[in-house]
Amino acid sequence: MPHEPVEIFPSDPEDTRQSIMKATYGILCERGYDGLSMQRVADRVGIEKASLYYHYDGKDDLLKAFLDFLTERLVDVFPLGEHGDAEQDLRTALDSFFLNVSDAAGDEEATFMTPDFARAYVELRAQAAHDEEYRRHFTESERRIETQLAGLVDRGIEEGVFRPVDSHGVAEYLLYNIEGVIFRAATSDEGALEAARTELDAYIDGRLVTDDEAEPTA
Amino acid sequence: MPHEPVEIFPSDPEDTRQSIMKATYGILCERGYDGLSMQRVADRVGIEKASLYYHYDGKDDLLKAFLDFLTERLVDVFPLGEHGDAEQDLRTALDSFFLNVSDAAGDEEATFMTPDFARAYVELRAQAAHDEEYRRHFTESERRIETQLAGLVDRGIEEGVFRPVDSHGVAEYLLYNIEGVIFRAATSDEGALEAARTELDAYIDGRLVTDDEAEPTA
Repeated sequence: MPHEPVEIFPSDPEDTRQSIMKATYGILCERGYDGLSMQRVADRVGIEKASLYYHYDGKDDLLKAFLDFLTERLVDVFPLGEHGDAEQDLRTALDSFFLNVSDAAGDEEATFMTPDFARAYVELRAQAAHDEEYRRHFTESERRIETQLAGLVDRGIEEGVFRPVDSHGVAEYLLYNIEGVIFRAATSDEGALEAARTELDAYIDGRLVTDDEAEPTA
Repeated sequence: MPHEPVEIFPSDPEDTRQSIMKATYGILCERGYDGLSMQRVADRVGIEKASLYYHYDGKDDLLKAFLDFLTERLVDVFPLGEHGDAEQDLRTALDSFFLNVSDAAGDEEATFMTPDFARAYVELRAQAAHDEEYRRHFTESERRIETQLAGLVDRGIEEGVFRPVDSHGVAEYLLYNIEGVIFRAATSDEGALEAARTELDAYIDGRLVTDDEAEPTA
């Protein structure tokens, strides 16, 4: 999974909505929240600005639709599917996430949470500090990921690879970790992604993995 | 420590600079980044706007000075001092932090990272996504906290209460956790601070605390 392209913004969009979402993503990565305008999105899609306003009331309405689109596609980005046992699948999902955030990711086409998008994401998310609707979008999106992560932990408990922990508590904690990584990566030069991954693995070893499975982190 | 007031913005400021910093903090909490203006700060301090411009070139210059002021005072906010052994001091510092972020904190005067300020902090920090100077301020500030946290972990290793771990890696991971808590608390309604604290304690138990000290988290 880490090296499979995530086709969240297909190179050949099927309809106008997909084209608008792809253009929005591209402009956010290049110019951030402040640099996104209805005119720029319309230009990139190749439609009249009036047509764009027919679909969306304005910039924030478009961006909220963009967040809905992302939430719908989160199942693709974090499949957390049954490829191996739950422990393997959790580590694979984290590999994919850290590779996405890392500067070393390289192949922009194949990834989603690139450093450029991480910056735009933090700016978008900062809107939620004073805007209830943005807040609702991020809350809904986190609820979906939390449900998927908790399901994976529950599966691990059933498979006997994880201890009988509070799966929702663990899922919430993993979310705090993931969001902390995005937040710091986008707003600080103190990169310590490797340390973060090492310690997160140590948490998984010590908290989740049953004794006969754990490989202690040095 | 958790219940001791942190006098980072003294009720009786000693000089104009302290008054300006206190006014900036208050307006950020009430109105966020967008609602802060030089006029509002000047009005609250009771000086002419021209006088404020004599000290600061504009809003972003003032806010960067505010971030410098906060960084200087971080030693007060996270004293991490030697009150008990290193494990006790780490848990006390985390108690203080979670109490500060929690909505239940109540006493606004006594705390610093209140929910209102957490929102303003995320907005300020989002500026770092596209502004090198903001980024430099947050990087410097994190470096200071990281150094303090790593020193605390080192002390715990010397005292024999912590295992011989990579103290800087652990400190970075704790920072990711702390920043993740602030980021989510400010931008999502999915509050799970108790779960975060439980799992963070489980990490500390499993990763740091030496076997004869650890009290396993249920």
